[in-house]
Amino acid sequence: MKFRRSGRLVDMTYYLLQHPHALVPLTFFSDQYQSAKSSISEDLTIIKQTFEQRGIGSLLTVPGAAGGVKFIPRIGASEAREIIDELCSLMAKPERLLPGGYLYLTDILGNPSIVNQIGRLFASVFADRKIDLVMTVATKGIPVAYAVANQLDVPVVIVRRDSKVTEGPTVSINYVSGSSKRIQTMVLSKRSLKTGSNVLIIDDFMKAGGTINGMVSMLEEFNANLAGIGVLVESEGVEERLVDEYISVVKLTDVDVKEKQIEVSDGNYFRFLNKTN
Amino acid sequence: MKFRRSGRLVDMTYYLLQHPHALVPLTFFSDQYQSAKSSISEDLTIIKQTFEQRGIGSLLTVPGAAGGVKFIPRIGASEAREIIDELCSLMAKPERLLPGGYLYLTDILGNPSIVNQIGRLFASVFADRKIDLVMTVATKGIPVAYAVANQLDVPVVIVRRDSKVTEGPTVSINYVSGSSKRIQTMVLSKRSLKTGSNVLIIDDFMKAGGTINGMVSMLEEFNANLAGIGVLVESEGVEERLVDEYISVVKLTDVDVKEKQIEVSDGNYFRFLNKTN
Repeated sequence: MKFRRSGRLVDMTYYLLQHPHALVPLTFFSDQYQSAKSSISEDLTIIKQTFEQRGIGSLLTVPGAAGGVKFIPRIGASEAREIIDELCSLMAKPERLLPGGYLYLTDILGNPSIVNQIGRLFASVFADRKIDLVMTVATKGIPVAYAVANQLDVPVVIVRRDSKVTEGPTVSINYVSGSSKRIQTMVLSKRSLKTGSNVLIIDDFMKAGGTINGMVSMLEEFNANLAGIGVLVESEGVEERLVDEYISVVKLTDVDVKEKQIEVSDGNYFRFLNKTN
Repeated sequence: MKFRRSGRLVDMTYYLLQHPHALVPLTFFSDQYQSAKSSISEDLTIIKQTFEQRGIGSLLTVPGAAGGVKFIPRIGASEAREIIDELCSLMAKPERLLPGGYLYLTDILGNPSIVNQIGRLFASVFADRKIDLVMTVATKGIPVAYAVANQLDVPVVIVRRDSKVTEGPTVSINYVSGSSKRIQTMVLSKRSLKTGSNVLIIDDFMKAGGTINGMVSMLEEFNANLAGIGVLVESEGVEERLVDEYISVVKLTDVDVKEKQIEVSDGNYFRFLNKTN
């Protein structure tokens, strides 16, 4: 199929957005559109400038015979600020308060466009780490984990609370929930995680960090490496945090069940977002 | 910010892909790029042609003062054929067989790019129905449900097997599992579904259809309407199917646990995909 520049720009933009973090050889595009490599290079320069100017991401050029281009989704600091402010105001609504000081987040986590924004936040901040897969625990962390994995172009593994026949043989560990101090179990399908994998742990909510700590123990069981931890909401006022380095998007600073008041502020996200973004 | 046509094409493509099924007024783009509406119209014509030529989707133009453009993701029949063939050969691998004739699908459902393709398949075939949200049941259907919802630009609600404090008040129903004939329970947060909503049910696997039937009963409990049912894998050889109209991507026609053989073929998908796609 022969394409003019304008059509190529539309189609290449589509292709690159669908394949983040993948190395695409220039010949792939030049064959596809029956265009000279020099024209493709010019197209890519236009796409790169637009992506950077609009805070969509960066386009890396890898030189040489095995080279090509790679689209790395990156969010600009000002857009990250807007998204996080919006999340804070969404979460601070008093009708979210549930008995026991829990927050109703189901509507936020059920909205794909919000979840995608959260995915872009994490994918940007973890873009330069070596990550082979994203791990989360059922159920609420799943959409965020997929949104991140989507942008990093890696698979997702889901740790479960119970063992299911459709998972095949599993590895099970016990861990202590940080806030309730109860012993709990989590299981992971044996086939789903290879030795030596670099794993990004993503979850929706962290209090003392017992569940995340459980996932870290699970990684040890599989001889896999921890590449990072990202949580959407961290809860402050925890006596002893079981997890050291993590990146949080928002922080629940105060929950007053009696007065029906919630205070939400930034997490530590901006400490990790590259200032040059 | 002033943009040349080439930069506008890249940025508009990005924007439209991020906002499927949303009506975008032409003034949104002309303000954004400080360009005349006539230039924006020409840009959109180029994008529309490329989207159609490449099987990305269609660009609807809604005329009038309240008009604009709408990107509708639609898959071409030949690409749908490729994706479904690929899924069939992935699923037919004998090492997927688990005791009891179950299939290990965790790796397939853990791969975001495969899941996105499945999402595009369903979003294309359900593109013209009125859908307000996508419903699924925890855990394995969740990624597919989000992938579909993403392309339809609607929220997801997740029915659970157990009630969690973080969901707030819930409605619980009992249903009979079609294959095991056991009575089971499913719960849904009361806040998550409004009366009169048009709901697309998505799940990863259907045997007799008991679970999907349970979700249909749940819709009745909320006075919501069934807009459609989509399953990734349907299992043949079921005595009595509890569900009438559904769209399946692939069909498990024969599972021989002793011989370690699986036969997988097309589901009924192509009967529903518009021939003009």
